[in-house]
Amino acid sequence: MITLASDFGSPYPAAMKGVVLQQTDTRLVDVSHDLPRGAVRESAFWRREVLPTFPPATHLAVVDPGVGTGRGVLVAQAGEHTLVGPDNGLLVPAARRLADEVDWFHADAGDPASSTFHGRDVFAPLAATVHDAVAADEAALAGHERLTRIDAPVDCQLPEATIDDDSGGTRGWVLAVDDFGNVVTNVPGNFLDGKDAVRVNGERVPVAETFGAVDPGSPLAVVGSHGYVECDVNGGHGDEWFGLSPGNDVHIEDV
Amino acid sequence: MITLASDFGSPYPAAMKGVVLQQTDTRLVDVSHDLPRGAVRESAFWRREVLPTFPPATHLAVVDPGVGTGRGVLVAQAGEHTLVGPDNGLLVPAARRLADEVDWFHADAGDPASSTFHGRDVFAPLAATVHDAVAADEAALAGHERLTRIDAPVDCQLPEATIDDDSGGTRGWVLAVDDFGNVVTNVPGNFLDGKDAVRVNGERVPVAETFGAVDPGSPLAVVGSHGYVECDVNGGHGDEWFGLSPGNDVHIEDV
Amino acid sequence: MITLASDFGSPYPAAMKGVVLQQTDTRLVDVSHDLPRGAVRESAFWRREVLPTFPPATHLAVVDPGVGTGRGVLVAQAGEHTLVGPDNGLLVPAARRLADEVDWFHADAGDPASSTFHGRDVFAPLAATVHDAVAADEAALAGHERLTRIDAPVDCQLPEATIDDDSGGTRGWVLAVDDFGNVVTNVPGNFLDGKDAVRVNGERVPVAETFGAVDPGSPLAVVGSHGYVECDVNGGHGDEWFGLSPGNDVHIEDV
Repeated sequence: MITLASDFGSPYPAAMKGVVLQQTDTRLVDVSHDLPRGAVRESAFWRREVLPTFPPATHLAVVDPGVGTGRGVLVAQAGEHTLVGPDNGLLVPAARRLADEVDWFHADAGDPASSTFHGRDVFAPLAATVHDAVAADEAALAGHERLTRIDAPVDCQLPEATIDDDSGGTRGWVLAVDDFGNVVTNVPGNFLDGKDAVRVNGERVPVAETFGAVDPGSPLAVVGSHGYVECDVNGGHGDEWFGLSPGNDVHIEDV
Repeated sequence: MITLASDFGSPYPAAMKGVVLQQTDTRLVDVSHDLPRGAVRESAFWRREVLPTFPPATHLAVVDPGVGTGRGVLVAQAGEHTLVGPDNGLLVPAARRLADEVDWFHADAGDPASSTFHGRDVFAPLAATVHDAVAADEAALAGHERLTRIDAPVDCQLPEATIDDDSGGTRGWVLAVDDFGNVVTNVPGNFLDGKDAVRVNGERVPVAETFGAVDPGSPLAVVGSHGYVECDVNGGHGDEWFGLSPGNDVHIEDV
Repeated sequence: MITLASDFGSPYPAAMKGVVLQQTDTRLVDVSHDLPRGAVRESAFWRREVLPTFPPATHLAVVDPGVGTGRGVLVAQAGEHTLVGPDNGLLVPAARRLADEVDWFHADAGDPASSTFHGRDVFAPLAATVHDAVAADEAALAGHERLTRIDAPVDCQLPEATIDDDSGGTRGWVLAVDDFGNVVTNVPGNFLDGKDAVRVNGERVPVAETFGAVDPGSPLAVVGSHGYVECDVNGGHGDEWFGLSPGNDVHIEDV
């Protein structure tokens, strides 16, 4: 199984699928081709959350603002999962979530036909190659002729916010905004334990377990599906109500 | 085969796919993850129109504004099709279109990891479970340990408009607006039989069989692919021209 | 393998998938359902670029502003690839790119259930039929009961711009704008050979090999992944910066 993800929209992902299918007849699964465009850290967050739901697979991902420059071509072996993509941090949080020990490799990029579409010219054929190699021999990557082991990739950290023992508040940031406009912070969900309301950047909002617990159009703080505090609006757009975007600081404290 | 539909956009559907593929290796088919957001009745219409084109399958759908509240978890057996989703009406018109007799069940939701993403935590694993059960024994649902037969689900009616014998007009409503901006009413298509033009909420528009029969940018009333009168614009946006949205009243009468 | 492409957005493509899967259990691959809406020439360009990446397959595509009118139903055999869609030019550049010799057929449209959704009622069942026929016998199309050989389809030309030997400049046009806002011209990429900068419709922009060679938000002329000159903005929208849309004239010359 090869999963595909990118920030390409349409129709470039199809070229990656075609190239992969020239080499292998394994199952393809589209993860998303609407990852936040050019946003490596946000996209890395989404991959960290989604990939662990999958059975062992080769995961191809391309969010690659440095396409054609000197950035490396990364392959990661994380337990029974293999990840392929640019060495810009995109693969790192997912790989570390999938396995305690990750083997990192740089791949020879070959002589790509273009300098602007390495999804088609470098990453898709490489994903098919490493998929078939691992399918034939799960230890194949360690000695693969196109791969060179490296100590560490370009890093991408997604730290959780910590709770201040004195003030009882927490200063975190926005990891992502989803398609519903829900604002996913990096504040651990247990910060909301036992609270009826909190202040989010000074604004008081109720704490609830479900969207349906507040009126349509009303804001809430909720433990989202990633285990973090989310700043949402029932049936509306939390990002607009709270005025928050990915990367923004968010200060959540007791009322 | 398991089909997947939701109003999730991207990338949450991938988490449902991953969860399903952990349990079963059957074929997955994306129906749509851009169902009208939070709009149960409109989404129920689209499912009623699309699912009968499929061969026997398990159909997973999640448009679930009540996620995490007390709403039930529904499984419907409609002939050789099995439908899984929230008990909020979403599955009902499709199930009734697929079979004259439908068996309805509530499923035990288990202890979901989140209160906001039952697509991943409840419906996807349940869809895989009932798919594999039915694949092994088509009568498996009746005695399944996670299912309890119920008399009737939360209903969702999509009645057709009726023609007024006196005035010759019809008062209906807008079932849906498609991605082209075509306005799908619930007025049966045969209302247009033998007519050259009609009034739609007072506005005279020609009746045509094809978009190409009127000039680009011009409005028309046409029997759409669902068998209903549609209020469309050739190469344009019928919803804007007619000022109509889903749920709006629409009065169509002779000129 | 059957690939599917359309300008339908959501959820109409699912009806095509369902119809195909009623007839055949071959692999389905979504190419794109967000082809430029109603734009036959642009969509034909995208298909010409994407389909050659695929292994032999049946390729179904529907961008069909003339649906329900007298336009023909086209099947093209191009080497080991079979293309199915409306006879409006959509299939022609791709078929010619896939093979030097193309066999063209008109298909009997039958008696479609609708006059507005031939994707579901004509093209999807036809694609399944010709796919299975070719899978059983690769010469099956020549004698197929539903097909009639034709000399030539409705044409669609995508000529390359030529370089003026005197002025050294080139007058071309915009083939497409991609989802990133990159402006794909029909000027051959080698026009940029050895140049540090060019004028695009009078505006001086640097020539670069990668987006990363210019500052974020800055324009560049680059040889894109299709082999043509593209007018792009690093991390931005080339179409907005250059004020260019598909079909527009573009004059590129030395500084």
